Amino acid sequence: MEFVDKLNIYREKINNSLDQILQVQEPKLLYEPMKYIIEIGGKRIRPMLCEIFYRMFNGEKDKVLYPALAIELLHNFTLVHDDIMDDDDKRRNKPTVHVKWDLAVGVLAGDGGVSLAYKVLLKEKFDRSDQIIDIFTEGLLEVCEGQGFDKEFETRVDVTEKEYVNMINKKTSALLAVSAKIGAVCANVDRETVEVANQYGRALGLAFQIQDDYLDIAGDEKLLGKTYGSDVQKGKKTYLYIKAKEKLAGEDLNKFNEIIEKENATRDEILRVRDIYDRNGILDETNTEIIRRIDLAKEAIDKLSKNYDTQELKEFTEYMLNRKF
Amino acid sequence: MEFVDKLNIYREKINNSLDQILQVQEPKLLYEPMKYIIEIGGKRIRPMLCEIFYRMFNGEKDKVLYPALAIELLHNFTLVHDDIMDDDDKRRNKPTVHVKWDLAVGVLAGDGGVSLAYKVLLKEKFDRSDQIIDIFTEGLLEVCEGQGFDKEFETRVDVTEKEYVNMINKKTSALLAVSAKIGAVCANVDRETVEVANQYGRALGLAFQIQDDYLDIAGDEKLLGKTYGSDVQKGKKTYLYIKAKEKLAGEDLNKFNEIIEKENATRDEILRVRDIYDRNGILDETNTEIIRRIDLAKEAIDKLSKNYDTQELKEFTEYMLNRKF
Repeated sequence: MEFVDKLNIYREKINNSLDQILQVQEPKLLYEPMKYIIEIGGKRIRPMLCEIFYRMFNGEKDKVLYPALAIELLHNFTLVHDDIMDDDDKRRNKPTVHVKWDLAVGVLAGDGGVSLAYKVLLKEKFDRSDQIIDIFTEGLLEVCEGQGFDKEFETRVDVTEKEYVNMINKKTSALLAVSAKIGAVCANVDRETVEVANQYGRALGLAFQIQDDYLDIAGDEKLLGKTYGSDVQKGKKTYLYIKAKEKLAGEDLNKFNEIIEKENATRDEILRVRDIYDRNGILDETNTEIIRRIDLAKEAIDKLSKNYDTQELKEFTEYMLNRKF
Repeated sequence: MEFVDKLNIYREKINNSLDQILQVQEPKLLYEPMKYIIEIGGKRIRPMLCEIFYRMFNGEKDKVLYPALAIELLHNFTLVHDDIMDDDDKRRNKPTVHVKWDLAVGVLAGDGGVSLAYKVLLKEKFDRSDQIIDIFTEGLLEVCEGQGFDKEFETRVDVTEKEYVNMINKKTSALLAVSAKIGAVCANVDRETVEVANQYGRALGLAFQIQDDYLDIAGDEKLLGKTYGSDVQKGKKTYLYIKAKEKLAGEDLNKFNEIIEKENATRDEILRVRDIYDRNGILDETNTEIIRRIDLAKEAIDKLSKNYDTQELKEFTEYMLNRKF
């Protein structure tokens, strides 16, 4: 079977299970938006990653399902609040919860979702349940910290690469690391192996987020499902922004600053920024950084005992690198 | 020692411990508002209740501190989101988080707070940690459900007393029941005794919320720390509103509807509503209902084994009934 077909089977199982969990009950104003945000979809990479790690370590079949689903729920419900904080109208081409309903419903659905995520996490008991809940909770706190840094960066123009990496390590990598670690802990592996899972998740997350920054301006516009160049429009402190501030000079720097500082840059202006990134080697450099981070993820895989079949995880890593949107 | 002095000692211990937990760290935009909301204070009745139950059941001294603090943290952080949902400017005479900072910070501080609450809950391990985390999680979900019903009621004029009681049973009673139950489970009592703790918390919560409704229009204005008559201004579906819809007729009903349906009723109009409540026996009836609910809480206490010294819990119950703001 092709790896992508295997992923589709995983994804379908995850989506079916999420459907079962998200039965609408009273009050509808809480459960309908919770169901909505899950139904508008997603790649489900976090629960897949959790399952892949668990299976690689020969975990008892299917026992990891609830923790994997809990991570996906947590991820989606933090996105509902992210959309409020970033004032985003659309997610995956659909209106965001606070736009389709209202602000209060958006806040509430996110909160209800976090408690539902914990509820699902607690459904299955493991030898090391305490550790699983600790990892999950630390992950949520890290996501909030990452969001806090991101928000602080909005009013700064001097964010360093180190600060940026620290921010995305929390905002994006934390939950990927949680997925890998929980898969490992559920399978009852030793502490060193859990740490390798952590390293893998961290590296993958950094690659993934830098790739997200890249695709927002250099990806396939039709496939993106959100506004093309939205990071430029918002003056977001992305990897490309930070490299631009480091490398640009003269006319390019002036033009870049002018466009990035205004609200709602036009399509032409976004393409102009893309051209500036391109001509100054920033797109290339970003691509190189993505590959470097993916290589770190692969190095983590190579640290694992030869007793484990890492084929699926390697394929997953390639799959993550090859996305175009 | 007078009971109120004993409570003050508890409260000081709780506040000192909360101070230690809420050290400001990076990112400041997350930790400063989290610290702020805890520092503006509160009666700390939830952790007190947790501690009182635990001590009554002869729990090992001081071991209940972290779960008790976790409940207080959870309560406060749900309030940050409540203030956003209700668009409230003030809490305890201070600007609310989303007013002092902004909406994004309010959303974020609430989320960070929930994860911090779990983190604190997990600090101490108990024989029945699984059950404690389950109770905590169910409580949070219930609070969200209660908030969802409350929000649904905003667009309805035909809310029944039964629906109202179901709503406050979730929105307010749930966390008081969580406090009592977790105190009991930490002390390792049997299932029946945990259920009595639940009944006590539920009854106390209903009494407390109906009293809150009462005090908003009949309490001491100077002590309230929020806008006097704010429920009338917002057309909130309170116990008094529901009784008014049941009992009023003629001129009083017309006037009541007129004032309750407009935005931002004046002080005179609020006093007019109070007068309508008074003349139609609604204040008296509400008081009677508060006492009835408190009596149910006392009946729960009487169900406990005679081996337990219930004196402190009885005093606490009286103390709750006697608040004037």
